[in-house]
Amino acid sequence: MLHAALIEELKALVEPGKVLTDAASLEAYGKDWTKHFAPAPSAIVFPKSIEQVQAIVRWANQHKVALVPSGGRTGLSAAAVAAHGEVVVSFDYMNQILEINEFDRTARCQAGVVTKQLQLAAEEKGLYYPVDFASSGSSQIGGNIGTNAGGIKVIRYGMTRNWVAGLKVVTGAGDILELNRDLIKNATGYDLRQLFIGAEGTLGFVVEATMRLERAPKNLTAMVLGTPDFDAIMPVLHAFQSKLDLTAFEFFSDKALAKVLARGDVPAPFDTPCPFYALLEFEASTEEVANDALAIFEHCVEQGWVLDGVMSQSEQQLQNLWKLREYISETISHWTPYKNDISVTVSRVPAFLKDIDAIVEANYPDFEVVWFGHIGDGNLHLNILKPDNMGKDEFFAKCATVNTWVFETVAKYNGSISAEHGVGMTKRDYLGYSRSEAEIACMKAVKAVFDPNGIMNPGKIFA
Amino acid sequence: MLHAALIEELKALVEPGKVLTDAASLEAYGKDWTKHFAPAPSAIVFPKSIEQVQAIVRWANQHKVALVPSGGRTGLSAAAVAAHGEVVVSFDYMNQILEINEFDRTARCQAGVVTKQLQLAAEEKGLYYPVDFASSGSSQIGGNIGTNAGGIKVIRYGMTRNWVAGLKVVTGAGDILELNRDLIKNATGYDLRQLFIGAEGTLGFVVEATMRLERAPKNLTAMVLGTPDFDAIMPVLHAFQSKLDLTAFEFFSDKALAKVLARGDVPAPFDTPCPFYALLEFEASTEEVANDALAIFEHCVEQGWVLDGVMSQSEQQLQNLWKLREYISETISHWTPYKNDISVTVSRVPAFLKDIDAIVEANYPDFEVVWFGHIGDGNLHLNILKPDNMGKDEFFAKCATVNTWVFETVAKYNGSISAEHGVGMTKRDYLGYSRSEAEIACMKAVKAVFDPNGIMNPGKIFA
Repeated sequence: MLHAALIEELKALVEPGKVLTDAASLEAYGKDWTKHFAPAPSAIVFPKSIEQVQAIVRWANQHKVALVPSGGRTGLSAAAVAAHGEVVVSFDYMNQILEINEFDRTARCQAGVVTKQLQLAAEEKGLYYPVDFASSGSSQIGGNIGTNAGGIKVIRYGMTRNWVAGLKVVTGAGDILELNRDLIKNATGYDLRQLFIGAEGTLGFVVEATMRLERAPKNLTAMVLGTPDFDAIMPVLHAFQSKLDLTAFEFFSDKALAKVLARGDVPAPFDTPCPFYALLEFEASTEEVANDALAIFEHCVEQGWVLDGVMSQSEQQLQNLWKLREYISETISHWTPYKNDISVTVSRVPAFLKDIDAIVEANYPDFEVVWFGHIGDGNLHLNILKPDNMGKDEFFAKCATVNTWVFETVAKYNGSISAEHGVGMTKRDYLGYSRSEAEIACMKAVKAVFDPNGIMNPGKIFA
Repeated sequence: MLHAALIEELKALVEPGKVLTDAASLEAYGKDWTKHFAPAPSAIVFPKSIEQVQAIVRWANQHKVALVPSGGRTGLSAAAVAAHGEVVVSFDYMNQILEINEFDRTARCQAGVVTKQLQLAAEEKGLYYPVDFASSGSSQIGGNIGTNAGGIKVIRYGMTRNWVAGLKVVTGAGDILELNRDLIKNATGYDLRQLFIGAEGTLGFVVEATMRLERAPKNLTAMVLGTPDFDAIMPVLHAFQSKLDLTAFEFFSDKALAKVLARGDVPAPFDTPCPFYALLEFEASTEEVANDALAIFEHCVEQGWVLDGVMSQSEQQLQNLWKLREYISETISHWTPYKNDISVTVSRVPAFLKDIDAIVEANYPDFEVVWFGHIGDGNLHLNILKPDNMGKDEFFAKCATVNTWVFETVAKYNGSISAEHGVGMTKRDYLGYSRSEAEIACMKAVKAVFDPNGIMNPGKIFA
């Protein structure tokens, strides 16, 4: 742990009361949503300006103190966990939207702005911030950028990366860089902005970001379709995608649906039982678009790809259909699920999913597997549920074995071992399944450029 | 120039006849569309495989031979010029589209695939490659990626960067990296793919790229609108953009229009004379959309922002309206224009344009200035025409002075000295107007990671 004299030095860099070392704060700010590592930071510091962040980084370089950036702490890869006496730099007090420009359709945000706060501010101006996911009520923009957050609308709007017009960062060397100047077109050398997106704070800290905004979507309409098998989901996606601009294309299995319906607070989409379901969404901006969607639906039924389906006719029905998908994660948390967030290219999904299913079934026939995910972008969430009669330790030990097989299968299909949750500490030992040795060597050399003393979130991404 | 023995070694690395050293080839392959530097390469080599590219790079490292990548040679910043005895690596024989995947909506291309070739191959499958510009008939995908090419549809589809799903590169160190595996979601550390996009071949050579494709646009419809002054263009953009998904929003001045109309082969859009014109395009996918567009047009007329306008009613009319914009560059080439490709954020455009106009007018009242560009993304093409009675040398010397003032104004507005043409050799001495010293130092250090011997396109981006 950090020497008391250093804590005093740290206190001098920020406003009074903005360094915390009490047990409750260390516990709260030392971890994210993962539960794998016990939090053990030395202190939590709350800067209120870019200059204070810079002063903290310079001080950390001087004393070789490890820093961990902290946003909404909703991460799922332990990238924001401080388990080794680090100083946590929290952006909770840098939480202002500094400017919204309606002509440029941009919002200049401090790193600690909460995703929902940005969404609401955009809405007030008749605009829209489209990156959305379960933790939007507490995740912060700086953290979203650090993990290049994805979510449920990626098929139409892309990842957080697409919405970053400009970045201010404090590098590990203590330099303030203003990257890309919020420009749409800028061909003046390497786009360093892109390096900091998804870098999990290992190169430097994002302190300010100008985020792009979009026009608000019109009359969002959802369909839930039941398919006779998983393979049928792909031609359904293809049929809709060639005619409509989909804003979402999600899927879930009958097991996932059954667990959500058992809650009793969401109506079933229809009575026909189906092994798999697709949830798709589009802007029914005109009646013609809605009619097109119905025609494609009928075509899918004729082809035998779809057994039954329903289309939302109101905002309430839209919300209810979305609940079928959105409630899954929370509902299955009761069974202590072992989660994997993996991706392959869309066309490889059916074969990949069958391979994984076969592996789990052959080796652990007593494990229940719940699949759901963002099929439109090849991102699958594999959830293995703990049998009620199995102890946690035994379960997680067996899952670790499954893990290796899953990642070997991911590698075979040239996929990603972390689609949208990042590497952090939970995936760093598996990085080689998705990145070559030469790539990892380049990444480490790039880190050394921006963080020569290795003080920025050490032990994350790389061991 | 390279020693004859080394040329023989180089010949051994590729197929017979695939190294050229004759004067005509050296002249042709040693330059791009810029005319500032005399081409003087030592040899031109034509690899046919990734392995041959790797062998060339390894050989170049061994002998410290400088390499210049060569695509369609349509660049406008001298990034593909070999003026100092370099070996030019041409991708003309790596020109195959290896695979089109309709489910993934991707096309895997060798670096030498011509943009138009990709556009047509996509069209055959009912898909669309949306990055388009004047040189699409000869520019190559590898070069597009190297300069992060933009063009006329950026407001809707973004730059080339948005369309690169995966890259194979040979780094300056001779490593083959497969970057991003064509995935939509991949959160496994730094996205090195992004570094190579827009790097102008200074980190390594792009040898293969998987490009994303889109559904084809429906019933593209254009409007040309005349405005009473430049300021009025901004609320017009705002009004249309808040209701419609524009696929283009271009502008040009009356001087630009007059020169195109003087050719006699394009009809005038309407009779009302206006100082500025906007050309906008959208998908009139339903009648409702077209009616919306007309309603917004009427609103703009009522507000006094638009004096007159016309909407295309057929493919032929669409083409004719586009010619008003697309013919400008070719038409004014008669006056030996001094071109600048600059950008600021959209909301700053009117003030910025006035500042530049004032500077040129005050200092060179005899210079005619023709403005046009992609106003929807803040990208302006400033063209200063040579007075008929002024010699070329005198004209270019005076323009160099203007240049400095233009770039100072760009810096004042926090803009880019190169919006979409790249830095190459023509802008490298001005890089400091758009990137800070700390940024340039980081860029150079990143280059050293991937190109430790400095053999990849040396003298480009950095002096």
